[in-house]
Amino acid sequence: MEIKVLKDILGANEQIAVRNRELLDKNNVFAVNLMSSPGAGKTNLILATIKQLKEKIKIGVIEGDISSSLDAEMIGKEGVPVVQINTGGTCHLDANMVSNALSNVPLPDIELLFIENVGNLICPASFALGEHKKVVISSVPEGDDKPFKYPLMFDIADVVIINKIDLLPYLKFDVAAFSQAIKGINEKVEIFQISCTTGQGIQRWVTWLLTQMSRR
Amino acid sequence: MEIKVLKDILGANEQIAVRNRELLDKNNVFAVNLMSSPGAGKTNLILATIKQLKEKIKIGVIEGDISSSLDAEMIGKEGVPVVQINTGGTCHLDANMVSNALSNVPLPDIELLFIENVGNLICPASFALGEHKKVVISSVPEGDDKPFKYPLMFDIADVVIINKIDLLPYLKFDVAAFSQAIKGINEKVEIFQISCTTGQGIQRWVTWLLTQMSRR
Repeated sequence: MEIKVLKDILGANEQIAVRNRELLDKNNVFAVNLMSSPGAGKTNLILATIKQLKEKIKIGVIEGDISSSLDAEMIGKEGVPVVQINTGGTCHLDANMVSNALSNVPLPDIELLFIENVGNLICPASFALGEHKKVVISSVPEGDDKPFKYPLMFDIADVVIINKIDLLPYLKFDVAAFSQAIKGINEKVEIFQISCTTGQGIQRWVTWLLTQMSRR
Repeated sequence: MEIKVLKDILGANEQIAVRNRELLDKNNVFAVNLMSSPGAGKTNLILATIKQLKEKIKIGVIEGDISSSLDAEMIGKEGVPVVQINTGGTCHLDANMVSNALSNVPLPDIELLFIENVGNLICPASFALGEHKKVVISSVPEGDDKPFKYPLMFDIADVVIINKIDLLPYLKFDVAAFSQAIKGINEKVEIFQISCTTGQGIQRWVTWLLTQMSRR
Protein backbone atom coordinates (compact mmCIF):
# COMPACT_ATOMS: atom_id res chain seq x y z
CA MET A 1 0.00 0.00 0.00
CA GLU A 2 1.27 3.41 -0.93
CA ILE A 3 0.93 6.10 1.67
CA LYS A 4 0.29 9.58 0.34
CA VAL A 5 2.32 12.29 2.01
CA LEU A 6 0.88 15.81 2.08
CA LYS A 7 3.12 18.57 0.81
CA ASP A 8 4.47 20.93 3.42
CA ILE A 9 2.76 24.30 3.76
CA LEU A 10 5.29 26.25 1.69
CA GLY A 11 5.00 23.67 -1.09
CA ALA A 12 1.22 23.99 -1.07
CA ASN A 13 1.48 27.78 -1.00
CA GLU A 14 3.86 27.68 -3.94
CA GLN A 15 1.41 25.60 -5.99
CA ILE A 16 -1.46 28.01 -5.37
CA ALA A 17 0.85 30.94 -6.17
CA VAL A 18 1.62 29.35 -9.57
CA ARG A 19 -2.12 29.06 -10.27
CA ASN A 20 -2.64 32.71 -9.24
CA ARG A 21 0.13 33.72 -11.62
CA GLU A 22 -1.45 31.75 -14.47
CA LEU A 23 -4.81 33.44 -13.84
CA LEU A 24 -3.15 36.88 -13.81
CA ASP A 25 -1.21 36.16 -17.01
CA LYS A 26 -4.32 34.84 -18.77
CA ASN A 27 -5.99 38.17 -18.03
CA ASN A 28 -2.88 40.15 -18.90
CA VAL A 29 -2.70 41.65 -15.39
CA PHE A 30 0.69 42.68 -13.95
CA ALA A 31 0.77 42.12 -10.17
CA VAL A 32 3.01 43.77 -7.59
CA ASN A 33 3.34 42.45 -4.01
CA LEU A 34 4.02 45.48 -1.77
CA MET A 35 5.71 44.73 1.56
CA SER A 36 7.07 46.90 4.40
CA SER A 37 7.05 47.63 8.12
CA PRO A 38 3.83 49.15 9.49
CA GLY A 39 3.51 52.76 8.38
CA ALA A 40 6.34 52.81 5.82
CA GLY A 41 3.98 54.03 3.10
CA LYS A 42 2.49 51.11 1.15
CA THR A 43 -0.96 52.71 0.86
CA ASN A 44 0.50 56.13 0.09
CA LEU A 45 2.65 54.64 -2.69
CA ILE A 46 -0.47 53.01 -4.20
CA LEU A 47 -2.36 56.33 -3.96
CA ALA A 48 0.53 58.29 -5.53
CA THR A 49 0.80 55.73 -8.35
CA ILE A 50 -2.97 55.80 -9.01
CA LYS A 51 -2.77 59.61 -9.20
CA GLN A 52 0.00 59.42 -11.85
CA LEU A 53 -1.39 56.53 -13.90
CA LYS A 54 -5.15 56.44 -13.63
CA GLU A 55 -5.67 58.16 -16.99
CA LYS A 56 -3.20 55.79 -18.67
CA ILE A 57 -3.87 52.32 -17.25
CA LYS A 58 -6.55 50.48 -15.29
CA ILE A 59 -5.50 49.64 -11.74
CA GLY A 60 -6.95 47.29 -9.10
CA VAL A 61 -5.92 46.73 -5.47
CA ILE A 62 -6.02 43.87 -2.96
CA GLU A 63 -5.61 45.21 0.59
CA GLY A 64 -4.20 42.93 3.29
CA ASP A 65 -4.70 43.83 6.95
CA ILE A 66 -4.95 42.05 10.29
CA SER A 67 -8.21 43.94 10.85
CA SER A 68 -9.91 47.17 9.69
CA SER A 69 -10.58 48.36 6.15
CA LEU A 70 -9.21 51.91 6.54
CA ASP A 71 -6.75 51.64 3.64
CA ALA A 72 -9.28 49.97 1.33
CA GLU A 73 -11.73 52.81 1.99
CA MET A 74 -9.09 55.42 1.11
CA ILE A 75 -8.21 53.63 -2.12
CA GLY A 76 -11.89 53.04 -2.99
CA LYS A 77 -12.36 56.83 -3.00
CA GLU A 78 -10.01 57.00 -6.00
CA GLY A 79 -12.55 55.01 -8.02
CA VAL A 80 -10.41 51.89 -8.46
CA PRO A 81 -11.71 48.39 -7.63
CA VAL A 82 -10.39 47.24 -4.23
CA VAL A 83 -10.83 43.94 -2.37
CA GLN A 84 -10.06 43.70 1.36
CA ILE A 85 -8.47 40.64 2.97
CA ASN A 86 -8.61 40.66 6.77
CA THR A 87 -6.22 37.98 8.01
CA GLY A 88 -7.72 38.00 11.50
CA GLY A 89 -4.35 37.82 13.25
CA THR A 90 -2.14 36.13 10.64
CA CYS A 91 0.98 38.20 10.09
CA HIS A 92 1.21 37.88 6.29
CA LEU A 93 -0.87 37.19 3.18
CA ASP A 94 -0.61 33.76 1.57
CA ALA A 95 -1.41 32.51 -1.94
CA ASN A 96 -4.72 30.97 -0.86
CA MET A 97 -6.00 34.27 0.60
CA VAL A 98 -5.01 36.01 -2.63
CA SER A 99 -6.67 33.27 -4.71
CA ASN A 100 -9.94 33.89 -2.85
CA ALA A 101 -9.56 37.65 -3.27
CA LEU A 102 -8.81 37.31 -7.00
CA SER A 103 -12.25 35.80 -7.58
CA ASN A 104 -13.64 39.18 -6.47
CA VAL A 105 -11.28 41.33 -8.56
CA PRO A 106 -12.64 42.32 -12.03
CA LEU A 107 -9.52 40.96 -13.79
CA PRO A 108 -10.64 41.61 -17.40
CA ASP A 109 -11.07 45.28 -16.47
CA ILE A 110 -7.60 45.91 -15.00
CA GLU A 111 -3.99 45.90 -16.19
CA LEU A 112 -2.06 46.50 -12.97
CA LEU A 113 -2.83 44.91 -9.59
CA PHE A 114 -1.27 46.07 -6.33
CA ILE A 115 -1.37 43.53 -3.52
CA GLU A 116 -0.71 45.40 -0.27
CA ASN A 117 0.65 42.87 2.22
CA VAL A 118 0.30 43.02 6.02
CA GLY A 119 2.71 45.53 7.60
CA ASN A 120 5.56 43.26 8.67
CA LEU A 121 9.21 43.06 7.60
CA ILE A 122 9.57 39.36 8.40
CA CYS A 123 6.80 36.83 7.63
CA PRO A 124 5.51 38.10 4.23
CA ALA A 125 8.99 37.47 2.75
CA SER A 126 8.41 33.69 2.94
CA PHE A 127 5.11 33.52 1.04
CA ALA A 128 4.83 33.81 -2.76
CA LEU A 129 1.42 35.11 -3.84
CA GLY A 130 1.69 34.73 -7.63
CA GLU A 131 2.97 38.29 -8.09
CA HIS A 132 5.26 39.36 -10.96
CA LYS A 133 7.38 41.65 -8.80
CA LYS A 134 8.10 41.96 -5.08
CA VAL A 135 8.50 45.58 -3.96
CA VAL A 136 9.79 46.40 -0.47
CA ILE A 137 9.32 49.88 0.97
CA SER A 138 11.77 51.01 3.63
CA SER A 139 11.18 54.48 5.07
CA VAL A 140 13.84 56.92 6.22
CA PRO A 141 12.60 57.18 9.86
CA GLU A 142 13.07 53.40 10.30
CA GLY A 143 16.84 53.86 10.07
CA ASP A 144 19.50 52.66 7.66
CA ASP A 145 20.35 49.45 9.56
CA LYS A 146 17.29 47.49 8.40
CA PRO A 147 19.02 45.35 5.70
CA PHE A 148 21.30 43.88 8.38
CA LYS A 149 18.40 43.14 10.71
CA TYR A 150 15.83 41.79 8.23
CA PRO A 151 18.05 40.33 5.49
CA LEU A 152 15.51 37.90 3.97
CA MET A 153 13.08 40.68 3.03
CA PHE A 154 15.81 42.58 1.18
CA ASP A 155 17.12 39.36 -0.40
CA ILE A 156 13.79 38.45 -2.05
CA ALA A 157 12.97 42.00 -3.23
CA ASP A 158 12.99 42.94 -6.93
CA VAL A 159 12.73 46.61 -5.94
CA VAL A 160 13.46 48.53 -2.75
CA ILE A 161 11.80 51.91 -2.44
CA ILE A 162 13.27 54.36 0.07
CA ASN A 163 10.22 56.41 1.09
CA LYS A 164 9.88 59.64 3.11
CA ILE A 165 13.09 61.16 1.71
CA ASP A 166 11.56 64.58 2.51
CA LEU A 167 12.50 63.74 6.15
CA LEU A 168 16.22 63.26 5.39
CA PRO A 169 17.15 66.74 6.73
CA TYR A 170 15.72 65.84 10.16
CA LEU A 171 17.10 62.33 10.61
CA LYS A 172 20.34 60.37 10.55
CA PHE A 173 20.01 58.15 7.48
CA ASP A 174 22.91 57.40 5.13
CA VAL A 175 21.31 56.66 1.73
CA ALA A 176 24.62 55.50 0.21
CA ALA A 177 25.40 53.11 3.10
CA PHE A 178 21.81 51.80 3.08
CA SER A 179 21.91 51.16 -0.68
CA GLN A 180 25.30 49.48 -0.40
CA ALA A 181 24.01 47.20 2.38
CA ILE A 182 21.07 46.12 0.20
CA LYS A 183 23.30 45.51 -2.83
CA GLY A 184 25.53 43.38 -0.59
CA ILE A 185 22.56 41.08 0.05
CA ASN A 186 20.90 41.33 -3.38
CA GLU A 187 23.03 42.56 -6.25
CA LYS A 188 20.22 42.79 -8.84
CA VAL A 189 17.73 44.87 -6.84
CA GLU A 190 16.49 48.22 -8.20
CA ILE A 191 16.47 51.06 -5.66
CA PHE A 192 14.26 54.15 -5.88
CA GLN A 193 14.19 57.18 -3.58
CA ILE A 194 10.77 58.77 -3.24
CA SER A 195 8.54 60.94 -1.11
CA CYS A 196 4.81 60.25 -1.35
CA THR A 197 4.26 63.57 0.47
CA THR A 198 6.15 65.84 -1.97
CA GLY A 199 5.91 63.58 -5.05
CA GLN A 200 9.68 63.51 -5.45
CA GLY A 201 10.90 60.41 -7.31
CA ILE A 202 7.39 59.12 -8.13
CA GLN A 203 7.86 59.73 -11.86
CA ARG A 204 10.95 57.50 -12.00
CA TRP A 205 9.12 54.70 -10.15
CA VAL A 206 6.09 54.97 -12.41
CA THR A 207 8.27 54.91 -15.55
CA TRP A 208 9.96 51.73 -14.28
CA LEU A 209 6.54 50.17 -13.63
CA LEU A 210 5.27 50.99 -17.14
CA THR A 211 8.47 49.62 -18.69
CA GLN A 212 8.07 46.33 -16.80
CA MET A 213 4.46 46.06 -17.93
CA SER A 214 5.31 46.78 -21.58
CA ARG A 215 8.06 44.11 -21.60
CA ARG A 216 5.69 41.26 -20.86
CA MET B 1 -4.41 3.22 29.79
CA GLU B 2 -4.17 6.94 30.17
CA ILE B 3 -2.89 8.86 27.18
CA LYS B 4 -0.86 11.95 27.95
CA VAL B 5 -1.74 14.95 25.85
CA LEU B 6 0.94 17.56 25.28
CA LYS B 7 0.02 21.12 26.11
CA ASP B 8 -0.39 23.44 23.12
CA ILE B 9 2.49 25.76 22.35
CA LEU B 10 1.00 28.83 24.03
CA GLY B 11 0.31 26.78 27.16
CA ALA B 12 3.92 25.58 27.20
CA ASN B 13 5.17 29.10 26.57
CA GLU B 14 3.04 30.38 29.44
CA GLN B 15 4.55 27.82 31.83
CA ILE B 16 8.11 28.77 30.94
CA ALA B 17 7.17 32.45 31.24
CA VAL B 18 5.94 31.80 34.81
CA ARG B 19 9.29 30.18 35.65
CA ASN B 20 11.19 33.13 34.13
CA ARG B 21 9.11 35.49 36.25
CA GLU B 22 9.87 33.48 39.42
CA LEU B 23 13.59 33.61 38.65
CA LEU B 24 13.42 37.38 38.06
CA ASP B 25 11.45 37.93 41.29
CA LYS B 26 13.85 35.76 43.30
CA ASN B 27 16.67 38.02 42.13
CA ASN B 28 14.61 41.18 42.61
CA VAL B 29 14.92 42.10 38.94
CA PHE B 30 12.17 44.16 37.26
CA ALA B 31 11.75 43.14 33.61
CA VAL B 32 10.27 45.16 30.75
CA ASN B 33 9.34 43.58 27.39
CA LEU B 34 9.84 46.27 24.72
CA MET B 35 7.88 45.78 21.49
CA SER B 36 7.39 47.86 18.32
CA SER B 37 7.58 47.99 14.53
CA PRO B 38 11.09 47.92 13.05
CA GLY B 39 12.86 51.22 13.65
CA ALA B 40 10.35 52.75 16.09
CA GLY B 41 13.07 53.32 18.68
CA LYS B 42 13.38 50.36 21.06
CA THR B 43 17.17 50.49 21.22
CA ASN B 44 17.20 54.28 21.45
CA LEU B 45 14.73 54.17 24.36
CA ILE B 46 16.99 51.69 26.16
CA LEU B 47 20.03 53.91 25.50
CA ALA B 48 18.19 57.05 26.70
CA THR B 49 17.03 55.23 29.85
CA ILE B 50 20.53 53.92 30.60
CA LYS B 51 21.85 57.48 30.24
CA GLN B 52 19.33 58.78 32.80
CA LEU B 53 19.52 55.91 35.28
CA LYS B 54 22.94 54.30 35.15
CA GLU B 55 24.17 56.15 38.23
CA LYS B 56 21.03 55.19 40.18
CA ILE B 57 20.25 51.58 39.28
CA LYS B 58 21.91 48.58 37.69
CA ILE B 59 20.53 47.73 34.25
CA GLY B 60 20.85 44.66 32.02
CA VAL B 61 19.58 44.04 28.49
CA ILE B 62 18.47 41.04 26.41
CA GLU B 63 18.50 41.91 22.70
CA GLY B 64 16.22 40.01 20.33
CA ASP B 65 16.91 40.10 16.58
CA ILE B 66 16.36 37.90 13.54
CA SER B 67 20.06 38.26 12.82
CA SER B 68 22.93 40.69 13.56
CA SER B 69 24.13 42.02 16.90
CA LEU B 70 24.25 45.72 15.96
CA ASP B 71 21.97 46.85 18.80
CA ALA B 72 23.71 44.68 21.39
CA GLU B 73 27.06 46.20 20.40
CA MET B 74 25.68 49.74 20.82
CA ILE B 75 24.29 48.91 24.24
CA GLY B 76 27.45 47.06 25.29
CA LYS B 77 29.39 50.31 24.77
CA GLU B 78 27.39 51.83 27.66
CA GLY B 79 29.00 49.30 30.00
CA VAL B 80 25.82 47.37 30.86
CA PRO B 81 25.59 43.58 30.55
CA VAL B 82 23.85 42.55 27.32
CA VAL B 83 22.89 39.13 25.95
CA GLN B 84 21.98 38.67 22.28
CA ILE B 85 19.26 36.30 21.08
CA ASN B 86 19.27 35.71 17.31
CA THR B 87 15.98 34.05 16.41
CA GLY B 88 17.26 32.97 12.98
CA GLY B 89 14.04 33.90 11.21
CA THR B 90 11.42 33.59 13.96
CA CYS B 91 9.37 36.78 14.11
CA HIS B 92 9.16 37.11 17.92
CA LEU B 93 10.91 36.12 21.16
CA ASP B 94 9.37 33.34 23.23
CA ALA B 95 9.73 32.39 26.89
CA ASN B 96 12.13 29.53 26.15
CA MET B 97 14.55 31.80 24.26
CA VAL B 98 14.43 34.24 27.18
CA SER B 99 14.95 31.40 29.68
CA ASN B 100 18.14 30.40 27.85
CA ALA B 101 19.29 34.03 27.71
CA LEU B 102 18.58 34.56 31.43
CA SER B 103 21.16 31.90 32.32
CA ASN B 104 23.73 34.27 30.77
CA VAL B 105 22.49 37.45 32.47
CA PRO B 106 24.22 38.30 35.81
CA LEU B 107 20.87 38.56 37.63
CA PRO B 108 22.27 39.22 41.14
CA ASP B 109 24.08 42.27 39.73
CA ILE B 110 21.09 43.98 38.08
CA GLU B 111 17.80 45.56 39.16
CA LEU B 112 16.18 46.42 35.82
CA LEU B 113 16.15 44.19 32.74
CA PHE B 114 15.07 45.39 29.30
CA ILE B 115 14.07 42.63 26.89
CA GLU B 116 14.10 44.13 23.39
CA ASN B 117 11.78 42.01 21.25
CA VAL B 118 12.05 41.46 17.47
CA GLY B 119 10.75 44.48 15.49
CA ASN B 120 7.21 43.38 14.65
CA LEU B 121 3.82 44.78 15.63
CA ILE B 122 2.00 41.43 15.36
CA CYS B 123 3.58 38.17 16.55
CA PRO B 124 5.37 39.31 19.78
CA ALA B 125 1.98 40.32 21.25
CA SER B 126 1.01 36.63 21.62
CA PHE B 127 4.06 35.45 23.62
CA ALA B 128 4.54 36.15 27.34
CA LEU B 129 8.22 36.15 28.33
CA GLY B 130 7.94 36.44 32.11
CA GLU B 131 8.18 40.24 32.04
CA HIS B 132 6.58 42.53 34.64
CA LYS B 133 5.46 45.15 32.11
CA LYS B 134 4.81 45.15 28.37
CA VAL B 135 5.82 48.44 26.74
CA VAL B 136 4.86 49.20 23.14
CA ILE B 137 6.61 51.97 21.22
CA SER B 138 4.72 53.58 18.36
CA SER B 139 6.58 56.28 16.45
CA VAL B 140 5.07 59.39 14.87
CA PRO B 141 6.19 58.59 11.27
CA GLU B 142 4.26 55.29 11.37
CA GLY B 143 0.98 57.23 11.43
CA ASP B 144 -1.87 57.53 13.91
CA ASP B 145 -3.97 54.67 12.46
CA LYS B 146 -1.88 51.87 13.97
CA PRO B 147 -4.22 50.98 16.91
CA PHE B 148 -6.99 50.16 14.41
CA LYS B 149 -4.70 48.03 12.28
CA TYR B 150 -2.78 46.15 14.98
CA PRO B 151 -5.31 46.08 17.86
CA LEU B 152 -3.88 43.10 19.79
CA MET B 153 -0.53 44.80 20.38
CA PHE B 154 -2.24 47.86 21.87
CA ASP B 155 -4.64 45.68 23.85
CA ILE B 156 -1.91 43.77 25.71
CA ALA B 157 0.29 46.86 26.40
CA ASP B 158 0.75 48.25 29.92
CA VAL B 159 2.40 51.32 28.43
CA VAL B 160 2.39 52.90 24.97
CA ILE B 161 5.24 55.28 24.23
CA ILE B 162 4.77 57.71 21.35
CA ASN B 163 8.34 58.22 20.13
CA LYS B 164 9.86 60.75 17.68
CA ILE B 165 7.56 63.60 18.76
CA ASP B 166 10.28 65.97 17.51
CA LEU B 167 8.99 65.06 14.00
CA LEU B 168 5.39 66.20 14.73
CA PRO B 169 5.86 69.52 12.87
CA TYR B 170 6.72 67.66 9.65
CA LEU B 171 4.05 64.94 9.67
CA LYS B 172 0.32 64.45 9.92
CA PHE B 173 -0.17 62.74 13.29
CA ASP B 174 -3.05 63.54 15.63
CA VAL B 175 -1.77 62.74 19.15
CA ALA B 176 -5.23 63.20 20.71
CA ALA B 177 -6.96 60.92 18.19
CA PHE B 178 -4.18 58.32 18.50
CA SER B 179 -4.41 58.33 22.31
CA GLN B 180 -8.20 58.08 22.17
CA ALA B 181 -7.99 55.11 19.78
CA ILE B 182 -5.64 53.29 22.17
CA LYS B 183 -7.84 54.04 25.20
CA GLY B 184 -10.80 52.67 23.23
CA ILE B 185 -8.97 49.31 23.01
CA ASN B 186 -7.26 49.39 26.40
CA GLU B 187 -8.64 51.75 29.02
CA LYS B 188 -5.89 51.22 31.64
CA VAL B 189 -2.86 51.84 29.43
CA GLU B 190 -0.35 54.58 30.31
CA ILE B 191 0.70 56.80 27.40
CA PHE B 192 3.95 58.76 27.24
CA GLN B 193 5.14 61.15 24.53
CA ILE B 194 8.89 61.20 24.05
CA SER B 195 11.74 61.99 21.70
CA CYS B 196 14.89 59.93 22.16
CA THR B 197 16.66 62.46 19.89
CA THR B 198 15.89 65.61 21.92
CA GLY B 199 15.32 63.92 25.29
CA GLN B 200 11.82 65.39 25.60
CA GLY B 201 9.55 63.31 27.85
CA ILE B 202 12.28 60.88 28.94
CA GLN B 203 12.22 62.17 32.53
CA ARG B 204 8.50 61.39 32.92
CA TRP B 205 9.03 57.85 31.53
CA VAL B 206 12.00 57.23 33.83
CA THR B 207 10.06 58.49 36.87
CA TRP B 208 7.22 56.08 36.02
CA LEU B 209 9.73 53.23 35.71
CA LEU B 210 11.33 53.97 39.10
CA THR B 211 7.87 54.21 40.73
CA GLN B 212 6.90 50.80 39.34
CA MET B 213 10.15 49.30 40.62
CA SER B 214 9.76 50.79 44.11
CA ARG B 215 6.17 49.47 44.42
CA ARG B 216 7.20 45.84 44.15
